[in-house]
Amino acid sequence: MRLAGLYVITEPALRDPIEGARLALEGSARIIQLRDKQATTRQLVETGLKLRELTRQYGAVLIVNDRLDVALAVEADGVHLGQDDMPVPMARKIAGENFLIGVSVETVEEARQAEAEGAHYLGVGPMFATATKPDAGEPVGPERLRAIKQAVSLPVFGIGGITIENALAVLKAGADGICVISAIMGAPEPVAATRQFIELMRLPYEKR
Amino acid sequence: MRLAGLYVITEPALRDPIEGARLALEGSARIIQLRDKQATTRQLVETGLKLRELTRQYGAVLIVNDRLDVALAVEADGVHLGQDDMPVPMARKIAGENFLIGVSVETVEEARQAEAEGAHYLGVGPMFATATKPDAGEPVGPERLRAIKQAVSLPVFGIGGITIENALAVLKAGADGICVISAIMGAPEPVAATRQFIELMRLPYEKR
Repeated sequence: MRLAGLYVITEPALRDPIEGARLALEGSARIIQLRDKQATTRQLVETGLKLRELTRQYGAVLIVNDRLDVALAVEADGVHLGQDDMPVPMARKIAGENFLIGVSVETVEEARQAEAEGAHYLGVGPMFATATKPDAGEPVGPERLRAIKQAVSLPVFGIGGITIENALAVLKAGADGICVISAIMGAPEPVAATRQFIELMRLPYEKR
Repeated sequence: MRLAGLYVITEPALRDPIEGARLALEGSARIIQLRDKQATTRQLVETGLKLRELTRQYGAVLIVNDRLDVALAVEADGVHLGQDDMPVPMARKIAGENFLIGVSVETVEEARQAEAEGAHYLGVGPMFATATKPDAGEPVGPERLRAIKQAVSLPVFGIGGITIENALAVLKAGADGICVISAIMGAPEPVAATRQFIELMRLPYEKR
């Protein structure tokens, strides 16, 4: 399976993670990431178990941000590692070969390293300015994604400040998929918002 | 090996974890716990690797607080789980039979449950009022430790607000060992402070 499509990340400050994930899955999101930097481990495990059940029902992929222990405990499909998280080789050694590992990268060099270390997909960003992750750096833009896409053979997702209005630029740069937080979790109608992204991704390349 | 002796927990706000651990080990602490609620996963892994090297040099046990992923990544001897952390059976399933699991308990009921789930040792507290963990509840006192010690067959450590002045009451209640943070990490002379605790624990029971 090659990862692609709409990748939706939970944000408890915007919407209850379970409800938000359910609506995104109803709109045909393919990947859900549990991300909650404030929760205790017990809370992460409890939410993760519910998301595991839900993603199984919809045949979707479940990824846990940063916390490999939580990912293993809830039998998620994988873990997403930032540059401040566990190094990829350590996670691979603990989790085994069949466990998905995604990595956040900003540069071609980081992308090449992640690929060499065995990452399954890359999240490249921030594409645009975003308020959801105040610790995110300056936007690197769709052109950086294009450069990374040319440098590696992994699936590449754009992330950071992506909306239905600017998503086309990310797809045109060669993204295999798009990661969103507030565009879905903060939408008044998350099912409809998800479907809008899916429609955009289904367009033949020349019509995008 | 039955766990016992002085169990020292790192506190970056009081002293650099590596330096603090080194001084405690020099004073004959038997167990070091890496605890840092503010650090990124990457920082925890880096500190954990250094503590692993140090504890091996001194033949001491290394435990990581809460983060089973970090514990596995740095090849610690075990993980310490609070009531807000991962449930013991999940951690056991991920980490296997030979991995130490310690559990924080406040009541006889929690102690019995932790024993039934396969914990290797218990931390009972808070023994006394403490400023190090502002989220800790009301002190349960040495008498609670005595009741728990009579209810389970696991090694039991007293924790929370223990100083060289009040440690005797915890030992007299039957503690196999004592957990300290600020009494060592905040001491002007951590080696000497550690040795004072060790001497107290070595006294014949009747002379304590």
